[in-house]
Formats: sequence, structure tokens, C-alpha cells
Amino acid sequence: MNTLKNLQLDANGNLRHFLTIEGLQRQTLIDILDLAESFANIKAQAVKKVPLLRGKTVVNLFFENSTRTRTTFELAAKRLSADVLNINITTSAASKGESLLDMLHNLEAMHCDMFVVRHADSGAAHFIAQNVAPHISVINAGDGQHAHPTQAMLDTFTIRRHKGDFGDLRVAIVGDILHSRVARSQIHALTTLGVGEVRVIGPKTLLPMDHRSLGVHVFHDMESGLAGVDVVIMLRLQRERMEGGLLPSEHEFFQRYGLTEEKLSLAKPDAIVMHPGPINRGVEISSEVADGPRSVILEQVSNGIAIRMAVMAMALGRQPGAETGGETS
Amino acid sequence: MNTLKNLQLDANGNLRHFLTIEGLQRQTLIDILDLAESFANIKAQAVKKVPLLRGKTVVNLFFENSTRTRTTFELAAKRLSADVLNINITTSAASKGESLLDMLHNLEAMHCDMFVVRHADSGAAHFIAQNVAPHISVINAGDGQHAHPTQAMLDTFTIRRHKGDFGDLRVAIVGDILHSRVARSQIHALTTLGVGEVRVIGPKTLLPMDHRSLGVHVFHDMESGLAGVDVVIMLRLQRERMEGGLLPSEHEFFQRYGLTEEKLSLAKPDAIVMHPGPINRGVEISSEVADGPRSVILEQVSNGIAIRMAVMAMALGRQPGAETGGETS
Amino acid sequence: MNTLKNLQLDANGNLRHFLTIEGLQRQTLIDILDLAESFANIKAQAVKKVPLLRGKTVVNLFFENSTRTRTTFELAAKRLSADVLNINITTSAASKGESLLDMLHNLEAMHCDMFVVRHADSGAAHFIAQNVAPHISVINAGDGQHAHPTQAMLDTFTIRRHKGDFGDLRVAIVGDILHSRVARSQIHALTTLGVGEVRVIGPKTLLPMDHRSLGVHVFHDMESGLAGVDVVIMLRLQRERMEGGLLPSEHEFFQRYGLTEEKLSLAKPDAIVMHPGPINRGVEISSEVADGPRSVILEQVSNGIAIRMAVMAMALGRQPGAETGGETS
Repeated sequence: MNTLKNLQLDANGNLRHFLTIEGLQRQTLIDILDLAESFANIKAQAVKKVPLLRGKTVVNLFFENSTRTRTTFELAAKRLSADVLNINITTSAASKGESLLDMLHNLEAMHCDMFVVRHADSGAAHFIAQNVAPHISVINAGDGQHAHPTQAMLDTFTIRRHKGDFGDLRVAIVGDILHSRVARSQIHALTTLGVGEVRVIGPKTLLPMDHRSLGVHVFHDMESGLAGVDVVIMLRLQRERMEGGLLPSEHEFFQRYGLTEEKLSLAKPDAIVMHPGPINRGVEISSEVADGPRSVILEQVSNGIAIRMAVMAMALGRQPGAETGGETS
Repeated sequence: MNTLKNLQLDANGNLRHFLTIEGLQRQTLIDILDLAESFANIKAQAVKKVPLLRGKTVVNLFFENSTRTRTTFELAAKRLSADVLNINITTSAASKGESLLDMLHNLEAMHCDMFVVRHADSGAAHFIAQNVAPHISVINAGDGQHAHPTQAMLDTFTIRRHKGDFGDLRVAIVGDILHSRVARSQIHALTTLGVGEVRVIGPKTLLPMDHRSLGVHVFHDMESGLAGVDVVIMLRLQRERMEGGLLPSEHEFFQRYGLTEEKLSLAKPDAIVMHPGPINRGVEISSEVADGPRSVILEQVSNGIAIRMAVMAMALGRQPGAETGGETS
Repeated sequence: MNTLKNLQLDANGNLRHFLTIEGLQRQTLIDILDLAESFANIKAQAVKKVPLLRGKTVVNLFFENSTRTRTTFELAAKRLSADVLNINITTSAASKGESLLDMLHNLEAMHCDMFVVRHADSGAAHFIAQNVAPHISVINAGDGQHAHPTQAMLDTFTIRRHKGDFGDLRVAIVGDILHSRVARSQIHALTTLGVGEVRVIGPKTLLPMDHRSLGVHVFHDMESGLAGVDVVIMLRLQRERMEGGLLPSEHEFFQRYGLTEEKLSLAKPDAIVMHPGPINRGVEISSEVADGPRSVILEQVSNGIAIRMAVMAMALGRQPGAETGGETS
């Protein structure tokens, strides 16, 4: 039995928590992408709100500051008509010595419905999901070096919108794979969705030890790694997550792994360029490429709202259905 | 004439401000409890919002940081469909040297309807209530060592839900009574509602001088104080409010006044255990008791939303009625 | 061609951005005042919300902290039923090294509709307006010493409500004109609206060099400057904007330019007294005058909500109309 899967799905097999891509079926990911598609279209209309989560309370529980990610979840929740509560734990009850579990149980008792969790420690969202009341859904908005599953879903959503079927695609992820929760979730999502070939490109010191079990092909130079790929995903150089000795100079890193027009010419002519943001111009990507015609970086941001709306709507929309078993309406 | 009463009630005898339990009639407290009962039931439904305060603006005016209390008022206001403005004064206009009264008058001029006030100084909410425009309601969310009336109402609400009539009950409040605005408001609420016997238990240094006029029985040891009580209310040890010399060590305090299963066995077999939160585990209460079957601590949190909704709805719902005197609808 | 005007108006001549009064036609200002009049009346009703901006997202983009101004825009947006996102840049993505333009483009990609910009640098709102996507409107909420156009509009709105026609009025602006974005915008608004005579009163060191081109009459003493005026606008002494040597002592400033009952008696008997707030009591204005019967300072605050609602509604309400050109509904 996959306990991770059981934690994320309810008794009826519906998505309850969204903590990691690992253990989820391909169809679950497809369902998220399809629902996001409907929200992506809604956004083009004059009134962007839908009443799906009216009366629900979403709590942004951020143990690590990230205005950018918090903003996308807040907007997604408000466009679903939910009420949003922003709690920045670094400035909060922690100062009164309340334990994490006591704080969670208090928020549950206030009839909150969803915790969107950002934490510097890997596994924090899982820990919280294991300890919340049955009516609560937990969404992982990034935990340490472990996972960032909504980012991976918005990335695959962006790829599908541009490339259609996943089966024939070659996707390369470039940069600091080792420290990247984004890369880890991307690899799981791309593999689960049946992408033809997933490549990781980076220096040996920034690649994970377990790359064999991840089912990816490893490259140490851009020339061979980018050859013939359909999608190039650049990662942010996480300087704050590196520790002494492993960090190449920015200049050296850019020389070898920074994406320039020249290196991009090795990929397919219609290859798209992605980046989770915020970008370090001139460090992992040149401005020419970031702002160029093959960059879909800002589309990723728009798609992030649609994906987060989809995940929230699935996780909270599930509950009334799970509680009624009869045949009457 | 009771000026306090006049300040809290309008010309028709309806609740306008909610600053303290002192001076309020038993029936006013019963009205709050009854209205809260209706909101407590609403919360179990899929859509928890009611449109009672639609178009009203509630300002959380927090001169003292308290994410927990601010959150409960914010949720209560949003579930009544009010707009909420959070103003943290420590980081606000004060830096430009604006006076408190000028700031209040500005918020009034912006057509705000309610100020929820938290302040480290006793009497701050009264001062503000004395100085606001006629259309404004002020709710005291805790002022210094003076009062915390919504906490007292959610406590009595919790007691009523478990024990029904107040008349035959023995209620013990344990700990640092001297520094506790919660205890002060609880004593007034319990007494006004006609609780049979209110006891306070604590070391001499942490009991108020005026306990005789409060109408409570004083105990200095748990053994005699807890004997035969229906309700045990533990207080938070307010280390930040104590000053040199009076503070027992945490270990010593827990030995004498910390609530353990052993001490709790002195109370009635169906006695309930309450705490305003956040709890100091192992200081004033053992985890075994806090998480045990007789603890209603998390119910208090839920009830806090219902009580705050009730107080807000009464204070703001009053106004249109007070202005129309005719018979036409 | 006036590029400033072109930047603020769309192809149909409708207000898109609101950055400065300069370059706007008299009729545009009148339209803002007239629309604000309708919102000023709505506010007296029980439900103060109108659904004009339902589904729109307004971002308060504050590079300079100002709880007061942020609050008025937040309230105005909420009363138009918009969703509001508060982003304080000093504590935000800047710490991750993201550029301003990248941040703006990300917010655009999240389908935000309006940026309300406050910045310490003159020209910041213009720079942002020049760089946003076509569907975004930018409102200047104060940039350096350059402009504060919504303040100027609420001031002229307040004058019109008290005095009716502008043509016969004499208006005096008193104090630190040199450092005041408020004064600059007021002068442009008053002149554009055809006020009979605009005077500025202050010490030589606090008057702008270009006063001739501004079309105002300059006075260095209150006695001659206030004689026969209908409106006295006091400015806040911007101590934080002054640099060594130019700053008179507060006492000396109050002696010469502080508004007292005695000096006010030089104006017309029905002259009104205005101040953008927050006031420095005893520095630029006596409490007797600030709280006296001729002060309309708090009316200005109320009017500020109506004006900001009007500007937001015009700028965002414009868009659907600009996109549909046909005759079908």
C-alpha cells in the first residue's frame, strides 16, 4: 500500500490533499489539467470570479516568506470566491510559544477549510496533512528541497497547451537539480504524464544522487543535453540553499549552463523556454532568451492561477460529495 | 446612573459598544448567547456566510500584536459578509506622529462602522468608545489587565452548551487571576448569569486585592478549590505581564496549580476543562488533560467565532432600527 | 503632441491611467467630480457597496509605507466590489533580487487589473504606466515630490461642495510648497478648473522656482496672502523631505505660517480650511482651527473615498466599452 497515495486521496479516490506528485495516478494529473483549462478560459472574461468556494476559508500558512507564491494562491482562492486568511508564522503566535499542532487545531476549530503551506523544511506539508481534522485539505506550496507540486502542474499545463500530447516530447531541466523542489516535482509529473524523455542537465555537484531511480537521463553539458529537445526548463540558481564549496561563480555558471540564444539553437526550432521565476537575468538565463519569442515564462504565471484554482476546487469541492452517499439529491 | 452601562447601550437599550461585562444586564448576556447559538449551527452548513453585515466595514485596530485574536474577529466579520481592514498600529501612522484621536476621526470619516480594539493599556477601548462618532461601534478585544468580554462570553456559551442552566453550577478559575483580563471578565459574566458559586484558585501573590467585592470564593490550594466543581477554567500563565519577585518558577507553579488528571479527579466526574489559549503545556495544564476527553478547549475556539459574530451583528444590526421610528416598513 | 495626455487617455479619449493632473482637460476633471458626487451619496445608505468592479483585482503597490493612503484606496476598491491585493515592496520579492519590471509583468500575468502606486521617487508611476500591458490601469497614489492627483481631486471636490462655481474663488495654499506633491497637483487642478486666483504663501526657501509658469500669485506673509480668500489649504510640514539648512524651527514656522484663529480672520468670513492630513497640531495649524467650525478636514477624508471610487471606476469601467465597437449588445 502506498501510504502517500492514501494520504492524498480520500476513500472515494478523490484528491483531498495535494502534497506531492509522487504516488498520484496519471488520470488524477489529467483531471487537474482539464479543470485548469476551464479556469484558464474563464479568466479572459470580464468577470473572473466563480462561486465554487463561496463560504469556504482558505488559510495561507507561510512559515517561509514568499510574496509571489502567496499572491498566486490568494488570487486563485479569491477568484473561487473563498475568504482568504494570510498568516505569516514568523511574526505570529510562535512568539507566544504555541506549538504548531496547537495552532493547527485552533485554525480547524475556527472552521477553516484549507491550509496552503509553505515551509523551509522538507516534509512539513505532509506532517501537517497527517495531523489535521477530516474536513481540512492541505496544499503544499513548497517544502524545503522536497516538492512544489502546483508548480509542476502549471509547468505541465503550459507544455500541454503548446505541445499537445506528452508522449513524443523531449524535455530538459537545466541547472541546480539537487536543491530544487521544483525539479523534483517536475520530474515526477513529466514521468507520470508519460513524457517521452526527461533529461536533467547540470554540474555533477548539483545533480541528485538518485537520478537513476527518477528515470531521467543525465547530461553534464548543454551541447549534448539540449540537442533536439522540445522544452527547456531553466531552474533558478538557489544561492540561498547552497552551502560552501559547491557553488560555482555566477559568471562560470552562466558560461556553462546559462541559457543563451546560441545554446538554445541546439534545441528544436519550435522549442519553448520555461522558468519557475523569479529569474536571475544573466545568471541562469540571458534577457534575450527570457524576453524572446520562445519564452513562455509569463504564460506559466497566468497558468499558475488556473492550476491553483483547479487544485483548490477539486480538494474542497470533493467534500460534500464524499459525505452524501444516498440517491436523493 | 451607571455611565458604563450608558456608554455600552444606546437610547433604546440596545447594545452599541461591547467593552466590558460590568454593568450589562443578565438579559443582554442571554441575548448574545442565544444569537451565538444560531451562528454556531450555521457553521455546520456548506456555506458559512450570512449577509447580515454586507456593506459594513470592520476595522481591526490592534495596538498590541495578537494574530490569534485578530484572526477570530476577521473570520467572524467575513462570515457576516463585512469588509475587514486590518490596521497594526505599531507599524502605522504613529510613525508620522498622528494622534490617536485624529486617526480615529479619519477612520470614521472613511465611513468605517466598527472598531475592534486590542491595546496593552487598561481602559483604551473605553477611551476610544467615548470619542467616536455616533455611528461607530467599539468592541474590546482585550485591554491591558482590564477586560476581554468576548472571551468571557464564549466561555459562558461553552459552559451553557455543556451544562445547561447556570444556577446550580460551581465554576473554578485557576491561576494568575491578578494579571488576567480574561479572569476579570469571566467573573463578571458568570456572576451576572447567576452561576451558583464562582471560585478563584491561586497563590496569594496572583489574586486580586478586591476579590471580596467580586463575589467569588478564594482558595489557595487545588485540593479544596477543585472539590466538587462542574467547570475548571485554567488561565494562561502571563509571564510577560509579571514583574520581578512575584513569579514562581514554572516547575513550582505546575506542581501546585498545574491541572493534572490527578487534581482533576477532585472535581465532579463530568466536570469540563477550559482554557482561553494558547496553552503552555506542562506549565498550567498537562497535555494529558488538555487533550483528554473532558477538555473543551477547542470547542471554545469554535464558539469564539459564533460569539464574535453575535456581538458584531447585535452592535451593527442595531443601527438602522435605532434610526427608523415609524410604522412603515 | 502632449505625450503625458496620451499616456493617461486611451484611443477614445477616456481616462486609462491617473498619474497627474497636468495635461488633462477641464471636462475630464469635471467628469471625475460628477461621478464622485454619486458615490458620496451612496455612502449615506445602509449598504455602501456597488458592484461596478466585481471580478476586478486592484493591487496596492506600495514602495513607500503609508497606511493612511493605502487604507483609502483599499476601502474605495472594496466598496466597488473589487478584490484587493496589498503588496508592500519593501518586504517583498525585492529581497530575491527580482527587477521591478519582472514583478510588474508577473502581476499582469496573474490577470490583475489596476496598480495603485506609491513611490518615493518622482516619476515612478509614469515609468510603471509606460511599461504595463494594455489592460492595466495605473493610479498614482503619490510619487516623490511630483504629484498626488487623487488628493488634488478630493480637494477640489470638497471646495465645489462648499463653494459651487470655481470661477470667483480665491484659494491660498500655505506652507512648504517646494517639497509638496500635494501642492503641485492642487495648483494644476485648481487652475484647470478655472479658479479665479490661486495663491501660494510660504518662505522663499520653501517656494518652487517655477511659480511663474504655474500661474499662481506668490506671497511671503500670511497677512497679505490670506486677505479675502475663500479657501485656505494648509500643507503638512514635510520634515522628512527637507534637507539641512532650509528647515525653520517648528516654533518659528508656526509663528509666521501656522494657521491660527487670528490669521484666519483675515480670510473671508465664510472661508473654509483644508489640510491633506495627517496634521501636525501646533506646527502648521492650531487645534482651535483644525477642530473649528470652518475646518472641512474630515470631510476631505470622506470625499477621498468617493474620489478614489470615481477614478477607479472610470479607469476600469472604460475597458469593456473600449473593446466593443459594434451595435449588438
